[in-house]
Amino acid sequence: MRLKVINPNTTASMTAKIGACAQAVAGPGVTVDATSPRHGPAAIESHTDAALAVPGVLSEITAGEAAGYDGYVIACFGDPGLKPARELARGPVVGIAEAAMRTATYLGRGFSVVTTLSRTIGQAQDLVDQYGVAASCLGIHACEIPVLSLETDPHAKSTILQACKEALATDGSDAIVLGCAGMADLCHELSNELGVSVIDGVAAATVAVEGLVRLRLTTGKLGEFALPNTDR
Amino acid sequence: MRLKVINPNTTASMTAKIGACAQAVAGPGVTVDATSPRHGPAAIESHTDAALAVPGVLSEITAGEAAGYDGYVIACFGDPGLKPARELARGPVVGIAEAAMRTATYLGRGFSVVTTLSRTIGQAQDLVDQYGVAASCLGIHACEIPVLSLETDPHAKSTILQACKEALATDGSDAIVLGCAGMADLCHELSNELGVSVIDGVAAATVAVEGLVRLRLTTGKLGEFALPNTDR
Amino acid sequence: MRLKVINPNTTASMTAKIGACAQAVAGPGVTVDATSPRHGPAAIESHTDAALAVPGVLSEITAGEAAGYDGYVIACFGDPGLKPARELARGPVVGIAEAAMRTATYLGRGFSVVTTLSRTIGQAQDLVDQYGVAASCLGIHACEIPVLSLETDPHAKSTILQACKEALATDGSDAIVLGCAGMADLCHELSNELGVSVIDGVAAATVAVEGLVRLRLTTGKLGEFALPNTDR
Amino acid sequence: MRLKVINPNTTASMTAKIGACAQAVAGPGVTVDATSPRHGPAAIESHTDAALAVPGVLSEITAGEAAGYDGYVIACFGDPGLKPARELARGPVVGIAEAAMRTATYLGRGFSVVTTLSRTIGQAQDLVDQYGVAASCLGIHACEIPVLSLETDPHAKSTILQACKEALATDGSDAIVLGCAGMADLCHELSNELGVSVIDGVAAATVAVEGLVRLRLTTGKLGEFALPNTDR
Amino acid sequence: MRLKVINPNTTASMTAKIGACAQAVAGPGVTVDATSPRHGPAAIESHTDAALAVPGVLSEITAGEAAGYDGYVIACFGDPGLKPARELARGPVVGIAEAAMRTATYLGRGFSVVTTLSRTIGQAQDLVDQYGVAASCLGIHACEIPVLSLETDPHAKSTILQACKEALATDGSDAIVLGCAGMADLCHELSNELGVSVIDGVAAATVAVEGLVRLRLTTGKLGEFALPNTDR
Amino acid sequence: MRLKVINPNTTASMTAKIGACAQAVAGPGVTVDATSPRHGPAAIESHTDAALAVPGVLSEITAGEAAGYDGYVIACFGDPGLKPARELARGPVVGIAEAAMRTATYLGRGFSVVTTLSRTIGQAQDLVDQYGVAASCLGIHACEIPVLSLETDPHAKSTILQACKEALATDGSDAIVLGCAGMADLCHELSNELGVSVIDGVAAATVAVEGLVRLRLTTGKLGEFALPNTDR
Repeated sequence: MRLKVINPNTTASMTAKIGACAQAVAGPGVTVDATSPRHGPAAIESHTDAALAVPGVLSEITAGEAAGYDGYVIACFGDPGLKPARELARGPVVGIAEAAMRTATYLGRGFSVVTTLSRTIGQAQDLVDQYGVAASCLGIHACEIPVLSLETDPHAKSTILQACKEALATDGSDAIVLGCAGMADLCHELSNELGVSVIDGVAAATVAVEGLVRLRLTTGKLGEFALPNTDR
Repeated sequence: MRLKVINPNTTASMTAKIGACAQAVAGPGVTVDATSPRHGPAAIESHTDAALAVPGVLSEITAGEAAGYDGYVIACFGDPGLKPARELARGPVVGIAEAAMRTATYLGRGFSVVTTLSRTIGQAQDLVDQYGVAASCLGIHACEIPVLSLETDPHAKSTILQACKEALATDGSDAIVLGCAGMADLCHELSNELGVSVIDGVAAATVAVEGLVRLRLTTGKLGEFALPNTDR
Repeated sequence: MRLKVINPNTTASMTAKIGACAQAVAGPGVTVDATSPRHGPAAIESHTDAALAVPGVLSEITAGEAAGYDGYVIACFGDPGLKPARELARGPVVGIAEAAMRTATYLGRGFSVVTTLSRTIGQAQDLVDQYGVAASCLGIHACEIPVLSLETDPHAKSTILQACKEALATDGSDAIVLGCAGMADLCHELSNELGVSVIDGVAAATVAVEGLVRLRLTTGKLGEFALPNTDR
Repeated sequence: MRLKVINPNTTASMTAKIGACAQAVAGPGVTVDATSPRHGPAAIESHTDAALAVPGVLSEITAGEAAGYDGYVIACFGDPGLKPARELARGPVVGIAEAAMRTATYLGRGFSVVTTLSRTIGQAQDLVDQYGVAASCLGIHACEIPVLSLETDPHAKSTILQACKEALATDGSDAIVLGCAGMADLCHELSNELGVSVIDGVAAATVAVEGLVRLRLTTGKLGEFALPNTDR
Repeated sequence: MRLKVINPNTTASMTAKIGACAQAVAGPGVTVDATSPRHGPAAIESHTDAALAVPGVLSEITAGEAAGYDGYVIACFGDPGLKPARELARGPVVGIAEAAMRTATYLGRGFSVVTTLSRTIGQAQDLVDQYGVAASCLGIHACEIPVLSLETDPHAKSTILQACKEALATDGSDAIVLGCAGMADLCHELSNELGVSVIDGVAAATVAVEGLVRLRLTTGKLGEFALPNTDR
Repeated sequence: MRLKVINPNTTASMTAKIGACAQAVAGPGVTVDATSPRHGPAAIESHTDAALAVPGVLSEITAGEAAGYDGYVIACFGDPGLKPARELARGPVVGIAEAAMRTATYLGRGFSVVTTLSRTIGQAQDLVDQYGVAASCLGIHACEIPVLSLETDPHAKSTILQACKEALATDGSDAIVLGCAGMADLCHELSNELGVSVIDGVAAATVAVEGLVRLRLTTGKLGEFALPNTDR
């Protein structure tokens, strides 16, 4: 089984980190290739960033189809391009926000999301509503660290840890969902320190799409998600 | 007052029609300029089409800001790029789906949408949910005419008329919302033949954004819709 | 175009203020006449006040129909009598609460309502739910100034300004909706001091109904909102 | 215990029927007085009818308070004036629509409403939403008999019976809610012929308000439903 | 009329208290018998407790059917076994949580629940959602007294009173719903001290089921709640 | 990794089938043991059946904890005992209804459920609402085959196939969810004949719980799902 994990931003160090986290949770015999678009925003922190990242994501899907991948992960917490990607791919496509949040619903009454900048909270709330997890999402909390600073700020982990603690106390939640692919490498450390499950969407989505492929399940192609007409 | 109406697809004849319909309802002293992106899909009939149209829409917004427009209309029923456009523009931005559906809520208990292809119904339903009009939208009906055939199919009007009649009978609705900018010119004829209000989103959005400008109202710029950071 | 703006309470000074605010935003060639019932409560601060104001509102509609008005505004934030008015009028009827809240949905993620007495918050919440703006209404805040004191309390504006500031900080909203027609004259001052859009329902409803008339749209008259049977 | 049952319309024969049905279900020692306003519509079949009936309903409440009643029933399926009545009365006030629908929720998964004219369906739907029974109300069906014809149409019972049968078959419901006080006397006959529970709101509300009085429960008077200020 | 009130836990002193509270509100001529299962948990404070109590509750229903009872109350705030009990009984079955919360909806805009341990709040929230009272339930508050300590803790009443006061202040509610059958005897005292209606579910459910029997209403037996097939 | 799959009914042939289907999708190195309670209903077709199966399910969980299993599947489409099982187990517990329905949400706009008897539709609808998949569940359809007849009725597969075809046509869905563990072995055949994804909950839940264990995620144990107090 070959899975392609697409980092929608163009920051290579983040793509490498995402790939490592995805491969680490993939099952025996599963190959994970991590890529990112050649052009597009270096980080996704606004609706504009997300919109401008989508064409690159879709090019990666199209290239992936030519290369015969079995399934795809879109590794940005806004799940940019998820619906068009489902039109273009034969195999299943999973976004890290949907995977993280749906996985969290197995773990108790509810979860808290801890994300980067507060201006992205609205976008996360939109996804919560779309994915039907509004009753389970007990709060969305920003730690106010920009995406690219996750890799450079020496206090990033402690700031996120503190935001997680406040989220658990405020929301009474059963688990934490990390709201950015750039936090993927902190997942187990945070979980150990907090004493609750912490869900990294990259790992959750990789496991989810591997499961879909193993179950031979894929996007319905008879209606809304049929291959788009490009013959105009 | 100068308004810019953006047709997200690249079909010039549709841009011209949209511009004429918008100007026809604009108030005295309001100038309406209709444009479309230089590159992008010729019609928007899938999630992929919509996604690939957005960068061009945003370029038109950016150009519009340089030119000093007071407000914008995004003239495709999927409202592609509406949220990022609100980040980029100082003045108000209105999508034709939101304007058509919100306008329809003033007219009674509920409305029916009559749109082009059935594969777009899911996208329309998403907008219904996002805009809070689920209780008012009593049905979404496809007439199965592709967007570009609206201009060439000699039976287009009668097919749409029939779909409207069936929608009214099935849904018991108080008004019809036309689900494609390419139907804008049929609005008054359909209304006369049906005996109920028929809402063209291009007209509704033009009137809505003119109203916002007149009321000196614009997008909140202190949080989610602040100008995006492009300094990375 | 001739519009009739009905102040549901019987306080003449408020009717005059409402009429001035409505005329100020009406387009060229639009005449606005402001009236109020001859009998009824002097202010509307309870469910009882609202209920007792409705017969007078409906008499004004009936008189307006005889006089040939093109559209109507009901200028009290509880929108008293809106549904029966839609039965009685041929042209469109718009309430100031619905217009203010729907207009606010064009301006970002959400708005806060700042109203008079806390005992009216429940009624405002009912309208929020009916109008489908529950996801956009981020809070309803009372400034505890009775309606008639809006015109006599020398601290009214500063008290309202303070309530608006607290609402913005608490709710993280993109705009303020003023929850009483008696606040209409404060709209632009408050907006200037707060740095966000402030929506007066009288202005919003006047612009909305003018737009409906211009678009030749009116209440569906084939079912629920047909002229009522009075021949019993 | 003394209960006052208010028929909001002015048709005396209907008031007598309502009074008899209410008294028939009241417990030992409970006195039921049925009244109707002196002025107002003879039947309630539109939003306008309902609005114009409310002042008379509230006068009956005020008179009832002077006479020392322990609780009230508003005996029209639109529950006109329910909220203002709760402001004016010390004891509990129950509407027949809320009582019928809430009572029906004890009887299984869901119920169907069978009402008079189809133009009232929207109003019934509004109440369903307000009372939180949307998941339980599986359908609202009109039998197209005007209110006053319930007493004169010789086929009324068989027409209603047929509408009930169709409702049960279509909705798969566990019970029927009668959507008009004028159907109160048919309740047991219909139930016997249909083999399911049939709920008359007059009876349900009488039993409900008797229960509230017995439990010493009444409207909260510290906020929204405090006695309204009439000292202006 | 003979009613059977089933205490789902096996603590005899609580059964006695519940029986006394139920008989105290039953109408003239109504006999109330209180029982509890022979085996099962001594208190219900977890999902496990609730699940293990259900077989005993159902045995009591089956025994009740043999004895010819007219209706049943399930006297634990989680309403354990309510749906299967409705399958097994011919007459109506009412849970104390549903009765308390539905009764509270007659009393104003909303109520607060005051319950025992915070770990039960999720279960109460589930019931709020199932019963359609989410808009009316303004808060659920734990006083952190275990069920069995309600009878032994000398400070139980004052702790509960304090929790009620905080709930009213926080939620702005019109009434208090007591979230445990073990609080039944405190109802009137708390109401007197708080000045608002306090609803004990045992009393509310007894009155509700008595009303259903008097109205000749019972569970729909044609579908989901038909007698279960035990012939396998 | 060792997983325990619990068939809540006592029919051994069904337990064997469930075990085979679960093992077939488990990853390399994952051991699946299928068991069922010693006592309880032979099939689960009513609320009573489900309730009476739960104590046996919980005994299997308790025995599983003693034996050191890493995770559990509850293999009945009503997910009986899921919440108490989460209290009792250290590792994750997944029900087949939640897994099937959540898995289906990755595959497009929506799914249809095809289940056994129509009297179970209400229970499935309850789960749809609890799991937040109401927008994705486009219909629930009964094929009217009793659970135990799935193994003996020679027309079972063709009857289910027909029900699936009707569901797809009526609902316009992207996938089928099989509503009974007893249909697990038909999954791939049905999918091949229908040309859409068909989801067997046993397989979906096995893959889901294996994923949770691999991701080191488990139920939150600090609040509602802490080990229950049995020390009374």
